[in-house]
Amino acid sequence: MKKVGNQSYMLENPVNIAATASIVGPKEKGGPLHQFFDQCLEDEFWGEKSWESAESKIVKETVNMAISKSGIAARDFDFCFAGDLLNQCIASSFGLRETNIPFIGLFGACSTFVESMLVASSFIDGGFATNCVCAASSHFCSAEKQFRFPLELGNQRPQSSQWTVTGSGSAILTKDGTGPFITSFTPGKIVDMGIKDANNMGAAMAGAAEDTLIRHFKDTGRNPSYYDAIFTGDLGHIGKDILIDLASSKGYNIKSNYNDCGVLIFDKDKQDTHSGGSGCGCIATVFSGYIYKMLQEKQYKKVLLMATGALMNSTSSQQGESIPGIAHAISIEL
Amino acid sequence: MKKVGNQSYMLENPVNIAATASIVGPKEKGGPLHQFFDQCLEDEFWGEKSWESAESKIVKETVNMAISKSGIAARDFDFCFAGDLLNQCIASSFGLRETNIPFIGLFGACSTFVESMLVASSFIDGGFATNCVCAASSHFCSAEKQFRFPLELGNQRPQSSQWTVTGSGSAILTKDGTGPFITSFTPGKIVDMGIKDANNMGAAMAGAAEDTLIRHFKDTGRNPSYYDAIFTGDLGHIGKDILIDLASSKGYNIKSNYNDCGVLIFDKDKQDTHSGGSGCGCIATVFSGYIYKMLQEKQYKKVLLMATGALMNSTSSQQGESIPGIAHAISIEL
Repeated sequence: MKKVGNQSYMLENPVNIAATASIVGPKEKGGPLHQFFDQCLEDEFWGEKSWESAESKIVKETVNMAISKSGIAARDFDFCFAGDLLNQCIASSFGLRETNIPFIGLFGACSTFVESMLVASSFIDGGFATNCVCAASSHFCSAEKQFRFPLELGNQRPQSSQWTVTGSGSAILTKDGTGPFITSFTPGKIVDMGIKDANNMGAAMAGAAEDTLIRHFKDTGRNPSYYDAIFTGDLGHIGKDILIDLASSKGYNIKSNYNDCGVLIFDKDKQDTHSGGSGCGCIATVFSGYIYKMLQEKQYKKVLLMATGALMNSTSSQQGESIPGIAHAISIEL
Repeated sequence: MKKVGNQSYMLENPVNIAATASIVGPKEKGGPLHQFFDQCLEDEFWGEKSWESAESKIVKETVNMAISKSGIAARDFDFCFAGDLLNQCIASSFGLRETNIPFIGLFGACSTFVESMLVASSFIDGGFATNCVCAASSHFCSAEKQFRFPLELGNQRPQSSQWTVTGSGSAILTKDGTGPFITSFTPGKIVDMGIKDANNMGAAMAGAAEDTLIRHFKDTGRNPSYYDAIFTGDLGHIGKDILIDLASSKGYNIKSNYNDCGVLIFDKDKQDTHSGGSGCGCIATVFSGYIYKMLQEKQYKKVLLMATGALMNSTSSQQGESIPGIAHAISIEL
């Protein structure tokens, strides 16, 4: 490990991404990336009695699939790093209770997937682990029920709102392998832009994304053109435009090689998903499905993956609190 | 770092605990450890309009106090690791949004405080950090409201129930210093004993505590007598007795040098706290207040600190789910 600049880290021994897996719901099946996911479910329940149980099952099966693809025996994993959006992160803890792998629960809201890869990379490069599981999930129905309104009410959603992705992504990180490799990271800070509208998460998180992105460029001395592609987690259409403007105001033009996973996963015009996808499962599935395959096929050789999270709950919104954001970034290179 | 046994880790460069701080509520002020806490509040609001805001303020002031005691400038911290019991961990994210320190949010339910020290130790020993902040919190009123019943209802509480500690503990971990030192750790696995009673958390968590404790002894080749004192986080009176029995059944007698922070923090007979204290703040304040001072005064030279968490939420209980547990252990030595 070498600390570069103020708060970024170059890994001494780049960490290998040995395998990924992704399972998504029916809405994602109807989206433009459907052919990249390992499995698309026909409904939001998957044979379970509740949306929460369905989400746990999705996490469980996704992690099992990723472990299976990696060819590494479950007993040879040192740590599992995972989290989700449900209160007290129950999707992960119930979904992964049978793994028998030491478990480090994380909460970074929708930034959790990249947070898990960042922490796992530190454990592996620091010599504490050889093989790690990383995972995150979200579920449209369990999230709507918990954060907004019961779905049965059929509430209208404002155009700035985003559609929580039903799905889980999992990545297997190992000390040795042939890549793609995690080569550096810039951890996020909590940034509060004062936005209070829980139906405009993209705007609330854009400031945190800007903070991490600019620190990453300054710390590493890189420009946006260093990367073939830069992806954020779930800023959606509105947050994406704000981030492009914010970065531009700091002298960084990311317009040509930047996109957002929430923009990519749904068809805005045909799917009625307003500002785009969101949730821990958004960047988790788009990375594990689409971006990882693009890296394997050498369509991309250098990617900056930055997940964004909105740190709030329904009580804080009801109490008139603002919505602080956070963004964690990792570089992935062949 | 040296991995010992199957899943325990000896730190190559023991990590220094440079300072701790603790702030607790009025109930804890009335308990037997009151003189060890840095500050005892007169009421559960501390001038705020909601219990949630009060909890955030407690986290914020505790962390500021710990940083101040350490004498390290805030800008010289590499990471802050923190979490709490509120939905989406808002006590930590709102309380720490002004720190300007890279933030890694954790969720391990009541095991979060030791989880934060375990992860921070890995980052420091692995070369990723020099100075880290660790913190966790809970609040009796915000927890009751969220997990059980509105306090205004005045519901009766069964004898097996525990009393969530109002308070926050924070520890400053550094690469260099004169100790006490974190010397080894054993990360927890998710263990589900099938207990479904959310008013009997001690029983639900005891199995996870046993799993980690026995793995720690087997991995390190140590016996209970290696430690001057062994502390669990918040098993309470019932869970403590169960753990003593479970350990005994595996051939380890911990009766003479083991206690539980939830047992220590309240006076069972005079304070009507039934099975004892609980919550992330329980082990966080008892360690930061009492145990750390005992180490500084050389009353203890070798301590095993094991925090236990119950991985559930109110929805999972209503849906009839069991309550899986987890326990993370760290060794602290002079």
